[in-house]
Amino acid sequence: MYKYDLTGKNKYYKLYACIRDDILSGKIKAGERLPSKRTFASELGVSVVTVELALDQLLAEGYVTSKERSGIYAERVGEGLFGGEKIQTKAPLITQEKKWRVDLVKGNTPPNMFPFSVWARLIRTVLSDCGEHLLERVPCDGDYELKRAISAYLYRSRGIDADPRYIIIGAGAEHLYGVLVQLIGRDKLYAVENPGYGKISSTYALNGASWTPVPVGERGMDLDELEKSGADVAHVSPSHQFPTGEVMPVSARSRLIEWAKEKNGYVIEDDYDSEFRLTGKPLQCTYGLCPDRVVYMNTFSKSLAPSMRMGYMVLPPALYEKFLKFYSSSASIVPLFEQKALASMLDGGYFERHLSRLRNYYRGIRKLLLERLNDAHCGCVVNDTGSGLHMTVKLPKAKSDEEIKRIAEGRGIRLKCLSDYLLAPLQGVDKCAVINYSGLTEENLQ
Amino acid sequence: MYKYDLTGKNKYYKLYACIRDDILSGKIKAGERLPSKRTFASELGVSVVTVELALDQLLAEGYVTSKERSGIYAERVGEGLFGGEKIQTKAPLITQEKKWRVDLVKGNTPPNMFPFSVWARLIRTVLSDCGEHLLERVPCDGDYELKRAISAYLYRSRGIDADPRYIIIGAGAEHLYGVLVQLIGRDKLYAVENPGYGKISSTYALNGASWTPVPVGERGMDLDELEKSGADVAHVSPSHQFPTGEVMPVSARSRLIEWAKEKNGYVIEDDYDSEFRLTGKPLQCTYGLCPDRVVYMNTFSKSLAPSMRMGYMVLPPALYEKFLKFYSSSASIVPLFEQKALASMLDGGYFERHLSRLRNYYRGIRKLLLERLNDAHCGCVVNDTGSGLHMTVKLPKAKSDEEIKRIAEGRGIRLKCLSDYLLAPLQGVDKCAVINYSGLTEENLQ
Repeated sequence: MYKYDLTGKNKYYKLYACIRDDILSGKIKAGERLPSKRTFASELGVSVVTVELALDQLLAEGYVTSKERSGIYAERVGEGLFGGEKIQTKAPLITQEKKWRVDLVKGNTPPNMFPFSVWARLIRTVLSDCGEHLLERVPCDGDYELKRAISAYLYRSRGIDADPRYIIIGAGAEHLYGVLVQLIGRDKLYAVENPGYGKISSTYALNGASWTPVPVGERGMDLDELEKSGADVAHVSPSHQFPTGEVMPVSARSRLIEWAKEKNGYVIEDDYDSEFRLTGKPLQCTYGLCPDRVVYMNTFSKSLAPSMRMGYMVLPPALYEKFLKFYSSSASIVPLFEQKALASMLDGGYFERHLSRLRNYYRGIRKLLLERLNDAHCGCVVNDTGSGLHMTVKLPKAKSDEEIKRIAEGRGIRLKCLSDYLLAPLQGVDKCAVINYSGLTEENLQ
Repeated sequence: MYKYDLTGKNKYYKLYACIRDDILSGKIKAGERLPSKRTFASELGVSVVTVELALDQLLAEGYVTSKERSGIYAERVGEGLFGGEKIQTKAPLITQEKKWRVDLVKGNTPPNMFPFSVWARLIRTVLSDCGEHLLERVPCDGDYELKRAISAYLYRSRGIDADPRYIIIGAGAEHLYGVLVQLIGRDKLYAVENPGYGKISSTYALNGASWTPVPVGERGMDLDELEKSGADVAHVSPSHQFPTGEVMPVSARSRLIEWAKEKNGYVIEDDYDSEFRLTGKPLQCTYGLCPDRVVYMNTFSKSLAPSMRMGYMVLPPALYEKFLKFYSSSASIVPLFEQKALASMLDGGYFERHLSRLRNYYRGIRKLLLERLNDAHCGCVVNDTGSGLHMTVKLPKAKSDEEIKRIAEGRGIRLKCLSDYLLAPLQGVDKCAVINYSGLTEENLQ
């Protein structure tokens, strides 16, 4: 013992590690008195300071204790903990997803559509203009410059008159759903559309809130069923329901608002793809009908790039007050960098130019797609409101949904049917393919 | 009626808005038949196409319905919704915080200490090297390059042998606490240190989990009390408890692990400021003792900049599997940009150079601070383990905690006492100031 090899650099750390390992392995026993600093120093040929540093570290970590006028003693540190055995586990790696020739499920905008050079230039400008201000803490609700830019954009593009104050910047839709559960309450019942986007209900569940599926008809969420459901909150996409594509007419929206007022509940208007109305102007949104009872929510993941985890919501004043109560001592979780760059993208008109370019592109894709469907002579019935980037196609001649998907798979096409989006059983949704064409290219359609 | 002024651009939208407003105001009554397209066109002097576009928009939004071979009729849209009355609310603005001469509560690293030019250069390099890859979706657990870089850094700096796979990148500590609640369970009881960092318990509560305070003594969390508490999870900062500054000795850590094994529970090792051990090497961490039962967690907000919402945790394999189950279809909420830049900062050694510069800086601050406290002849007893960036100072001569804070306030100093961090009553913590010196500058101490 104590014949440690301490040659080379960092002698004190080596000595610390040697003694520690001897205590762990039991070579130095619990309660055993260690040699004096001077003995250590002379035996090992190091300075007393080196020994002191090593012993200080052991003292700080609790491997040894020092008793005044007596010396330093090894501590009991528990047994079998430090056997050095590696944990053996077989946790799955994230599996590589299958490569499809055509993917009609996942909707990622073709990367070359993103105005990368504009974005890179804005990033560089933000970097040099803001400098060290970029390091400052961002208020919980986001950078005011971006909140103001979003408010102005909402007014220009959607006719929404939203006070920038009530806009909350978040890291994408899922993050915002989680915040909403905290604001509205985990004890409330959240009605979600059936069929619907599964991530909505699963995110509510993950955040500890209960949800209930409410059927979607031609006029969006069935309001009679909503009333029967006992829900307090209705999560809807009135401008373009996913996956049915239905639009909620204004009379149904006004009834929905009445429901929320009576219930003292809320409507969450998930406007996830309203930017992509390809024919006519964007549809008027529900938020304007009653900003006290409607949470308006949208993200930039779809319109900019999937790596851009940025979304926002406009809160009713009562919920905004709650937000401040819960979060005022927290910082925004979105980096200031991205917030500043997006603000200049909105203010400079780059975002809207990008959107109009995207819409033009998708108009072409949609036209080609409709032609292809027509050419196929499959007797299919297309339901497409010209909103958003997906449509449903009823295939009455098909035997079953499984057959539709099997045939598609045989051609390298990833496809889901309406029934795949069911959260609870529903009649009359079979033999209907959901075609998300946001990831399609002209090549795919040749 | 129908004498609309449609001069100028965007005639169809103007026509749409005029008809819509007339329906809303009741000028056009529910059920009323609208003139034919041709009548509209000739009366208003616009083309039939313009009228068609306007009517299409009204149809899509549900203001009118079309009956085959009959015409277009105004719909009933609900009353009193569109009165145009603005909501009047008095939600508080985020109040401007008081400016203090010296702030010993908030711990923000002086911004000029951040290696801004290095960071800006790395950002530019990432921008040109990664290009459009930056737009790709990031896996739920983070960019693998950053996970690998953190794993290597943990090995170099903390001797932690963590498989990069089990590292999860998150948007700061609060975000990670929320994810942990989802993984470990909202039905579990979380033990937190008392006194402690209030954000920990409040974040558990916000995420719907129950917590219980467990007293902290000289050896960190009191393990007898932990056993009595019935908790399933212990959230501890063994390397430097906040605010007491105590270090948990290795024997207590091993007992804590035994507790977690027996309970089938978890230890959350919040290593929030271990980078700042100013004397000696960083203390060994608990994670290495039992990677199956310990979640290791740290952030870069303290060591880099408060605007950088980036943290990480190393999960036990069982929790990692759960994480994949819950999140594999989600994207990471931290922008790829920041992840890539941080990875090159770690791999290039810039982060460790920055840290060692910071540590040197804080050694100077700490020395000056101890001198000032000594000069003050206030009979105070300093408890400082040389870990982290805060210390406690017992002031036996003071009358009360309120007096300590009042005197400090009179000198423009923001200060909290140990009692301000109590989550439940505890004996013997009075007359003790907590001095967080991470925001101090040499000027403050002249």
